Order: sequence, then C-alpha cells, then structure tokens
Amino acid sequence: MRTSKPPPGLEEISEAECWELLGLHQMGRIAIVVDGKPQIFPVNYGLRGKIIVFRTAAGTKLAYAPDSPVAFEIDEYDASAGAGWSVMVQGLGRDVTDAADDFSWTARGTRVYPIAPGEKLHRIAIDHSVITGRRFRAHDFVP
Amino acid sequence: MRTSKPPPGLEEISEAECWELLGLHQMGRIAIVVDGKPQIFPVNYGLRGKIIVFRTAAGTKLAYAPDSPVAFEIDEYDASAGAGWSVMVQGLGRDVTDAADDFSWTARGTRVYPIAPGEKLHRIAIDHSVITGRRFRAHDFVP
Repeated sequence: MRTSKPPPGLEEISEAECWELLGLHQMGRIAIVVDGKPQIFPVNYGLRGKIIVFRTAAGTKLAYAPDSPVAFEIDEYDASAGAGWSVMVQGLGRDVTDAADDFSWTARGTRVYPIAPGEKLHRIAIDHSVITGRRFRAHDFVP
Repeated sequence: MRTSKPPPGLEEISEAECWELLGLHQMGRIAIVVDGKPQIFPVNYGLRGKIIVFRTAAGTKLAYAPDSPVAFEIDEYDASAGAGWSVMVQGLGRDVTDAADDFSWTARGTRVYPIAPGEKLHRIAIDHSVITGRRFRAHDFVP
C-alpha cells in the first residue's frame, strides 16, 4: 500500500544509486522479528557486490536473523541543506560464519570492522530481495 | 537471549537516561512488521512524557503500525571520540489521530515537525513496553 504519487520534494532513488550509497557508508540498522515483534539494532557493515554483511556475538541478532526476514536501513540528513535520504534493503538473514556455499564464501570476503567493543565472531549476511530509497528536500526550507 | 555480561567498553543506559536522550533528539527510525517481514523507516518524532509520536500520510506505516508491535530506535556515533550510543523502545503502535481516549489526547498534544515534504495528517504513537539503551567506547580507540 503506497500513495500513488510522491509529494513534491520527494523522489525515489534508483536501485543502482541505492547500492552506491550503501557502498559509501559503514553504519546502518538491522531490524529483525522476535516472536512477532520487531527490534532494531545499529551495526557496522560491509558490502561486497550486493551482499550486506555485519558481525555479531551470540545474542538476539544471531538467534533471530538467520533464515528469517530482515530489513537493513541507512539514512542521512543534512540540516544545513534541509535535505536527506534513506535506503532500505529487505531480504533474508543468513549465518555465513562457516557455511560452505558460494553465497557464504563471497560474504565472508567482506571487510567488516565493528566499532563497538566485544568479540563478534559470527557473520550474518543479507540475501536481498527488495531495495528502495528515497531522497527529499524540505519544501519550505529557507537556507 | 543475551550474553551474560557486556564486554568491556559497553554499558547499559538507565531507563531514565534513555527517555532523556529521546527528549533531546527529533529523528529516529520506526520498525514495523508487514506480513511477517520487518521494514524500517526514518521519521521525525516528538516526545510527550513517555509517548513517542510521529506523523504520517496514508501508506505502509499507517496500514501496519496501529495495534501492532513496533520498535523505535535512535542512535548517535561520535567518530572523533570513538564513542556511540543507541536507545530502542518496543511497544504497540496506536493511531491517535482521532481517538478520544486519554492516551490519544495526550499523544496529540505532542509537537511533531516532519522535515520530509508531503501532508502527514495521521499521528501514530508508541505505547511502550520495553526501553533499552547501550553506550560504548571503542576499546582500542586512540584519539
């Protein structure tokens, strides 16, 4: 369900540019579903091709992301320009820490540097199905 | 499921400080579940007491947030300090646009200024059940 036409000042970002934006950033948020309820966690991530990878220790993300629907989001807002954008990737979480399939091999080649402390020995990748992005400029913004 | 002890450099933020941080910011991300799959959207929000309120037009958020479990998250990372934090609120979404109950009345008193363009005539509030926060400092950070 979506409105038929975006309002003035709001535009969709092409799929190619969404991936480009993902390649330029290192911090995003992963949403997972735990017992029917969503949870959101900030994570550092890496991108290889079109595979988003993040690292984690044992815990909620490791327990509920693999083989389950997840969403990943990055955004930016420039207050001085009155402009912002966001990109959302939807897909399936996959534990690629040890698996021997091609997807996991490729995903393990991704460089990911978590900033938060703690050993994060597990790697979770997103097997994407949908990627969408939106950019806006505040219509009544006066610089 | 969580690890028994946070690693060095990671600390939990008290519930009181979580609300304080929410009161100091205006932009967060809402996660909703659509057909079992999570989605994340950035929103401007307002806080009144312990009620988070955002505005929206007709669309996915309005269709799937009311009377459903949602999560709301804010975070910040200071690269120069090598430190960051995040706060997550879990609860039930409620469409407070017209409802006459006390919660909705209170929620409608919240000032919310969406930056993104487009009429956002509906107000959705979060009836919170859980609030958690974490703060970290990179353990090997050298300023």
